[in-house]
Amino acid sequence: MLPRLSSSYLLGNIEALAAVGAIDGGGCARLALTDEDRAGRDLVVGWMKALGLAVTVDAIGNVTGLRAGCEKLAPVMTGSHIDTVRTGGRYDGNYGVLAGLEVVRALNEAGTVTRRPIAVTFFTNEEGARFHPDMMGSLVYAGGLGLNEAYAATDKDGLSVGDELRRIGYLGPVKPGTQKPHAFVELHIEQGPILDEEKVQIGVVESVQGISWTEYTVTGVSNHAGTTPMRLRRDAGYLASSVNLFARKLAWEMGGDQVATVGEMALRPNLINVVPNRAVFTVDLRNTDEALLKDAEARVAAHVAEVAKTEKVEVAAKVLARFEPVIFDAGLVSRVEHHASALGRSTRRMPSGAGHDAQMMQRLCPTAMIFVPSVAGLSHNVKEHTEAGDLIAGAEVLLNLILELAES
Amino acid sequence: MLPRLSSSYLLGNIEALAAVGAIDGGGCARLALTDEDRAGRDLVVGWMKALGLAVTVDAIGNVTGLRAGCEKLAPVMTGSHIDTVRTGGRYDGNYGVLAGLEVVRALNEAGTVTRRPIAVTFFTNEEGARFHPDMMGSLVYAGGLGLNEAYAATDKDGLSVGDELRRIGYLGPVKPGTQKPHAFVELHIEQGPILDEEKVQIGVVESVQGISWTEYTVTGVSNHAGTTPMRLRRDAGYLASSVNLFARKLAWEMGGDQVATVGEMALRPNLINVVPNRAVFTVDLRNTDEALLKDAEARVAAHVAEVAKTEKVEVAAKVLARFEPVIFDAGLVSRVEHHASALGRSTRRMPSGAGHDAQMMQRLCPTAMIFVPSVAGLSHNVKEHTEAGDLIAGAEVLLNLILELAES
Repeated sequence: MLPRLSSSYLLGNIEALAAVGAIDGGGCARLALTDEDRAGRDLVVGWMKALGLAVTVDAIGNVTGLRAGCEKLAPVMTGSHIDTVRTGGRYDGNYGVLAGLEVVRALNEAGTVTRRPIAVTFFTNEEGARFHPDMMGSLVYAGGLGLNEAYAATDKDGLSVGDELRRIGYLGPVKPGTQKPHAFVELHIEQGPILDEEKVQIGVVESVQGISWTEYTVTGVSNHAGTTPMRLRRDAGYLASSVNLFARKLAWEMGGDQVATVGEMALRPNLINVVPNRAVFTVDLRNTDEALLKDAEARVAAHVAEVAKTEKVEVAAKVLARFEPVIFDAGLVSRVEHHASALGRSTRRMPSGAGHDAQMMQRLCPTAMIFVPSVAGLSHNVKEHTEAGDLIAGAEVLLNLILELAES
Repeated sequence: MLPRLSSSYLLGNIEALAAVGAIDGGGCARLALTDEDRAGRDLVVGWMKALGLAVTVDAIGNVTGLRAGCEKLAPVMTGSHIDTVRTGGRYDGNYGVLAGLEVVRALNEAGTVTRRPIAVTFFTNEEGARFHPDMMGSLVYAGGLGLNEAYAATDKDGLSVGDELRRIGYLGPVKPGTQKPHAFVELHIEQGPILDEEKVQIGVVESVQGISWTEYTVTGVSNHAGTTPMRLRRDAGYLASSVNLFARKLAWEMGGDQVATVGEMALRPNLINVVPNRAVFTVDLRNTDEALLKDAEARVAAHVAEVAKTEKVEVAAKVLARFEPVIFDAGLVSRVEHHASALGRSTRRMPSGAGHDAQMMQRLCPTAMIFVPSVAGLSHNVKEHTEAGDLIAGAEVLLNLILELAES
C-alpha cells in the first residue's frame, strides 16, 4: 500500500493547535516559552508519541520526534516552529510541523519502512517576538549561537530564556545539534502575495534574502512652525521622510529581489506646530545577493549623510540585524521542483523574503524549503489563510521528497 | 520730569512672576485657569493695585488695570497674556503685560498726566494649551466667540472654562469688550529666530500669518517587509513622507512668508519589518497672503490625491484650524517703526508667524505689535530667553508709542 495523506487529520490538527492561545479573528498568540507555548508543545508532543515517534527535547527546547529507519543512518529531518507572534495566524510554522506528522502518520498507516530515520522537529523561538534573536532554536542547533548566550536572552519583563525553558519543562537533556541530519526540508506558507497573485501552487525556495535592519536616530532643532523661516530649519522628521522616499526609489531602480521598507518612524515632540527635533526611524533592506545588498546599504547611508549635511542635523545609525543571504542546496531545490511537477503542481522558483529555521539548518546539511500560497499574502495576522487544497498539495510534495531522501 | 523706565522693576517683576509655577530649567507651567494661573493673576493684580490702577475683571476672566486720563476718552490699551504652555518660558506673554505695568510705573513716577486713559490688560487662555480655542479671552473680547460657547470648552479631564473661572475667582462682572480701545499695542518676544539672527533690535509687526492646519489619516495595507514585492505595496507611511518632502519643496518654491511643516507623524503598526497600514500626519501651512495660503493648501491637497492614487491608499483629511491672515493698522505700524528708529534702534518689518491676542483686537480697533528678539528663536521652551537690554528697548518703544497715542 502506498502512503496516502489524510486532509482531515492534517486540517484537524491545525485546528486543534490553533485553539491553544486562540485570539479573536481566528489567530493565535503563543509567544515562545509562555504557558500557551507549553500547552501547544504538550499537544504536539502527545501527537508525536501517539504516532510512535521517539521524542527527545534538547537543551534549547527544540523537540524532535524520530521515526526509526531500517539502517543506522543520519535522519531526514523536516519541521518548523510552533511559537507565534502576538497576533499570529494558525499556519505560520505550525503547518510545516503538523504536515511532517501527517507524513509520518501516512507512512505508519501504509506500513512503509524507510532506509533512513525520519525526524520531525519544532524549533524554539523562531519568531523572536519575545526573545532575541529570532530563529533561536535552529541557530543554536546549527552551532551559530552558544547555549549560555541563548539562555541569557531576556524578554521585556526581564525573564530569561533559560529560566522560562526550565519553568515550562522544556529544558531537555540532549545537546542541540547532536544529530546532524542527512537533509532538512521545511514546508511553510509563503507569507507573501506572489504565489497567490500568480496562481502558482508550489513555491520552490532557492534562497533566503539577506536582511539589513538599521535604526536611525536624527537630532535636529525643535522650532516653532510659524516663526521659523524655512532656511533656518533643522528638521529631524524631514530627513526621515526623505529616506523613506529614497528607499522606495532605490528598490525600484535596483529591481530584482531588492525590497526596502521604512516601517517605524517616531517624531518628537510630535506636535502639529513644532519642527521635530528628533526622529527615530528604521530601514529594512533585503536582497538575495550579498553584493547588491551591500550596495543598497551604502546608497542609503550616503543619502542619509547628504541630507544630514544640508539639513544640519546629527544622525546616529545602529545596525539592529544583519544576515547574509542563504542559498539552499541546489540539488535538493531541484528535487522540490521535480516532485511538485510530478504531482502536477505549477511551480515557481523564488527567494524567501522572511527568515526561517531552514536558513540556519543549511549551515549543517543540504536544506530546501517548499512554499504554499498565502491568501493575499497576509501573515503575522489573524487573517492569515491558506486554502485546504494548497495545504495538502504542499504536504504531498513533502511526503514524496522525504520518501526519496529517506532511501538515498 | 520725563518718564524713565526702570530695568530693575521690569526684570524683577518678570522674575517674580516666573517663580509662580516655576519648572526645572527656568521655565513656567501656568496653564490657563489652574491654581498656578490664579496665583500668577493674583500677583499681577496686586501690582496693578499698587500702581493705583482701577482693576476690573470681565466675564471671561480678562483683567484690565486702568490708569485714568484727564479726558473721558477711549483708553489706549496694551497687554498680552500670562498663561503659559506646559513647558513655557518666562517671557512669552508675561513680558508684554509687565512692560505695560512698567510704563504705568514710569508715568506715575514722573507725574505724567495723559489725555486718554491707559489700560493694561491680560487676556485669558491665550495659549490654548488647556482649553480650545487659543486666544480665547481676546477672541471673546473682540466679539468673535460667545461667552457661553467659551464657558463650555473643557480640558482633557472634562473641566470647563466656566467652572474653572468661577473656581479660581476670575469670572468677573464686566461684559467683555465693553471698553472699545482707541488703539491696542502688544509688546511680545518674537518667538522666532529672525531678529536674533539678523541682529535687529525691534521687529515692526505688520501682520499675523494665516494658519491652515490639516490632519491626514492614511489607510493602506499592512504587509511583510520581506515578502511583499515593491509593486504590491500600499504603504500609508510612504504617502506621509512624500507630503513632508512636497511641503518643503512648496515652501521654497513659493518663497516669501510661506512656511510649511509636517510636525506630527505616527505609523501603525510601526514595526521595522511591516509595511505601515496607517499613517496619521499633520500639515501646518502659513502665509500672510490669503490667496497664496489657499494656493498652498490646494497644491498640498493635489499632491496627497496624486500619491493616494498611485499608492492605492485611502486618505481622509480633517481641518484642525484655519485662520485668515490679519493685517495690522498701517498707520500704527508706521508709528512703531518711527518710535523705534527715533530711539536709535534697528528695525525690521515682519509678519508674526505665531498667533497673538493682538490679531483678535485688530477686529475692534487699530492694533499693532512690537517684537523683541528671542535668543536662537526658542519659545514654548524653558530655555526661552531675551536679553535684558532688548527687553528694555522694547518697553521704551511701547512707552513712547503709548505716550503719543494717549495724547491723540
